[in-house]
Amino acid sequence: MTELLGKDLLGIEDLNREAIVSILDTAVSFKDVSAREIKKVPTLRGKTVINLFYEPSTRTRTSFEIAAKRMSADAINISVAASSVKKGETLKDTALNLEAMNPDCIVVRHASSGAPHMLAEYMECSVINGGDGFHEHPSQALLDILTVSEKLGGVDKIKGVNVLIVGDVAHSRVARSNILGFTKLGAKVTVSGPPTMIPVGIEELGCKVEYNMAKAIKDADVVMMLRIQLERQGTALFPTAREYAKLFGLDALKLKSAKDDVIILHPGPINRGVEIAPDVADGPWSLILNQVTNGVAVRMALFYMLLGGARE
Amino acid sequence: MTELLGKDLLGIEDLNREAIVSILDTAVSFKDVSAREIKKVPTLRGKTVINLFYEPSTRTRTSFEIAAKRMSADAINISVAASSVKKGETLKDTALNLEAMNPDCIVVRHASSGAPHMLAEYMECSVINGGDGFHEHPSQALLDILTVSEKLGGVDKIKGVNVLIVGDVAHSRVARSNILGFTKLGAKVTVSGPPTMIPVGIEELGCKVEYNMAKAIKDADVVMMLRIQLERQGTALFPTAREYAKLFGLDALKLKSAKDDVIILHPGPINRGVEIAPDVADGPWSLILNQVTNGVAVRMALFYMLLGGARE
Amino acid sequence: MTELLGKDLLGIEDLNREAIVSILDTAVSFKDVSAREIKKVPTLRGKTVINLFYEPSTRTRTSFEIAAKRMSADAINISVAASSVKKGETLKDTALNLEAMNPDCIVVRHASSGAPHMLAEYMECSVINGGDGFHEHPSQALLDILTVSEKLGGVDKIKGVNVLIVGDVAHSRVARSNILGFTKLGAKVTVSGPPTMIPVGIEELGCKVEYNMAKAIKDADVVMMLRIQLERQGTALFPTAREYAKLFGLDALKLKSAKDDVIILHPGPINRGVEIAPDVADGPWSLILNQVTNGVAVRMALFYMLLGGARE
Repeated sequence: MTELLGKDLLGIEDLNREAIVSILDTAVSFKDVSAREIKKVPTLRGKTVINLFYEPSTRTRTSFEIAAKRMSADAINISVAASSVKKGETLKDTALNLEAMNPDCIVVRHASSGAPHMLAEYMECSVINGGDGFHEHPSQALLDILTVSEKLGGVDKIKGVNVLIVGDVAHSRVARSNILGFTKLGAKVTVSGPPTMIPVGIEELGCKVEYNMAKAIKDADVVMMLRIQLERQGTALFPTAREYAKLFGLDALKLKSAKDDVIILHPGPINRGVEIAPDVADGPWSLILNQVTNGVAVRMALFYMLLGGARE
Repeated sequence: MTELLGKDLLGIEDLNREAIVSILDTAVSFKDVSAREIKKVPTLRGKTVINLFYEPSTRTRTSFEIAAKRMSADAINISVAASSVKKGETLKDTALNLEAMNPDCIVVRHASSGAPHMLAEYMECSVINGGDGFHEHPSQALLDILTVSEKLGGVDKIKGVNVLIVGDVAHSRVARSNILGFTKLGAKVTVSGPPTMIPVGIEELGCKVEYNMAKAIKDADVVMMLRIQLERQGTALFPTAREYAKLFGLDALKLKSAKDDVIILHPGPINRGVEIAPDVADGPWSLILNQVTNGVAVRMALFYMLLGGARE
Repeated sequence: MTELLGKDLLGIEDLNREAIVSILDTAVSFKDVSAREIKKVPTLRGKTVINLFYEPSTRTRTSFEIAAKRMSADAINISVAASSVKKGETLKDTALNLEAMNPDCIVVRHASSGAPHMLAEYMECSVINGGDGFHEHPSQALLDILTVSEKLGGVDKIKGVNVLIVGDVAHSRVARSNILGFTKLGAKVTVSGPPTMIPVGIEELGCKVEYNMAKAIKDADVVMMLRIQLERQGTALFPTAREYAKLFGLDALKLKSAKDDVIILHPGPINRGVEIAPDVADGPWSLILNQVTNGVAVRMALFYMLLGGARE
């Protein structure tokens, strides 16, 4: 199986359909572990996983850490605030130094696009991109695809499905990885948002653009709402949160014109009342919490496939 | 045993005498583990415990983490500073998201009274209140009670004992949990402190008020000194630390008029020379360090009873 | 073996030659563990190691944490920012409180020289000095010595070797521990740097002073470059980083006049272009990454020898 992936998981752009399907299948087999009384398998005992986070993230770091521990790996957390990064060490030197401690896998989140690729180049151990700049967040896309696949009854059913991604697409690694991933599985992806948030040339990734969300939602089988970074983009890219919510937030009114069995996703953490209305987030079409559960399973699968647990 | 406790431990107010006694008995049986060469039992292998701390605390977080690890559970730490809490997620959403990762127990500390109760409502896993606002800190009260019980030679001996709690009772979850706990075991609790620190109506919890500490100490079998939050309350609630120490600090002079076998407790960290004099803190009547040791044992007992280790 | 070390490792100054050799031998035997598929031995199962860091350090904390976990010990991290240290607790009280939780070892890093010694005095558990003020950083010196010993083909070969330490010797615990350590093994140590960075009376440690680095390097078998703390010392102790680099930085020009088989060390993190030129840091004489690898092995050896794993 490992040949499908190679040493690292840096982006969905590097995966073919077969690799994606293989990861999803493996993840399904690991979902069972987290549902047991004893949530632990000895598969990766004696492996060292380092979570190297240059940006804070409860959700993603916790998900990777739980995944590692349920596989019996040793998990080490390094966060920027308490690290030598402040002391001005280059990313390359950090990579080489960590490598010298013989880890088996580094999960890296970094504000700069391409940082995980640089690490991967310098390190013999596996590197998983835990989110890099506005570039990719592949484990997020994989868990999103797994969630849709489960709901539809199989990854084959994703072919021809209409996926609508709404929000600040320009600054979203989640959007980028999902466009790539769903497209590779044959889905038709449309992005929507204010023109300031839709990058020029996004169609080259294989998606369509529809600035009118109220219109775009009518055909959607899957609606993925992106998080608005109120703290960063609030003032610059759109007039007010209220106006944004009216035009691009997913509320009961817009949902009314969607298909009856529409699937609603959000990578979290959600801004209730901004990009998604509370009743929609908590409603029956929302699979937001399934996404979180699937996140642990997908990350267990990635550790398993990359760290060669099968070979022991 | 678990019927005595239910799913969560949110406060001493929810426990009856039988439940408290059962926790203490269990804790005693776990004290032995921490005294061994190999301080580990496999009881909670494959269980996931999340320490979710919205307020910093070396002592309490470390105690819960050590307790979890000595039971062989996987412990995950989440602290506010490095978390998505900053991003404005609601507590409910944090609860639901963590729940979706299938933890077995969340230990939560939060500046808002009632936060653990809200988590418990939304989560299927066990929730332990690690201190909420000015409300409760039940594991602290349990370790305090265990410490007194050990010294007196049994929990039955607590009946009729005079417990004096001194300090900022109004802003102390430790005081509140201890008033409830000791009262349920038949002790007679008196609180003392400057009038600005004794809440109106505190008697309704079953205790008496005596503003004159020098007088109150004469009858006390147990004196529990509360920590003065110099950084917060220093300027507002009393004129100077020096004056506070003179009137409500426990020093050799006041101790002189106490019983010969008085027990001195403090939840820590102590302000030497403010609420407790150094020679008193380090003296033979002080059981402050026994409290810390008992803290690990009580927390192991709570994990054991709540996570159903017995059933495996 | 433990008689060689006693309860704690506080400084190289407490070790005799035999003890140093014994640690190095043990470290060599543990290097193998980190190179295996399954990087874990059960030796310290059920032991509790606390990393108590009052100063941030990715490198050292991670190295100790990985070492502890590969020995199967439970590792608990406490960092100042999220700790009760802020609340003004004395170091003694922190020591006594942690001790009451029955740890087996505390690794402590502290800005004050002597802090680990104070902890050791108050604690029954082992204390390892992870760096104290401008005093000592013994595990760093041990890994440096191991690196040189490996390269030379044995610790006996260190006798008579010329070791040159360059930089802010006055403020370097790394320098101090290395002067002591290499001297005890019979090496001849010379220190170099601007006069403001060489403390008066440093010769009493058994080393020589040569302010002219270009001259000193000619005889050196080992050149250890110290990190310049640009953030702290940049403005006070020397005019500009550029001038410092010219006079005391190790670049290709200075390296030209060194021996052909000179060994270059640096405790990291390195400032490329300040105290060491990039091509030198990455060049064939640099053993900087071997130092990092040896750091994990040395720390495993220390845990093994201090925590009495052999006796189980």
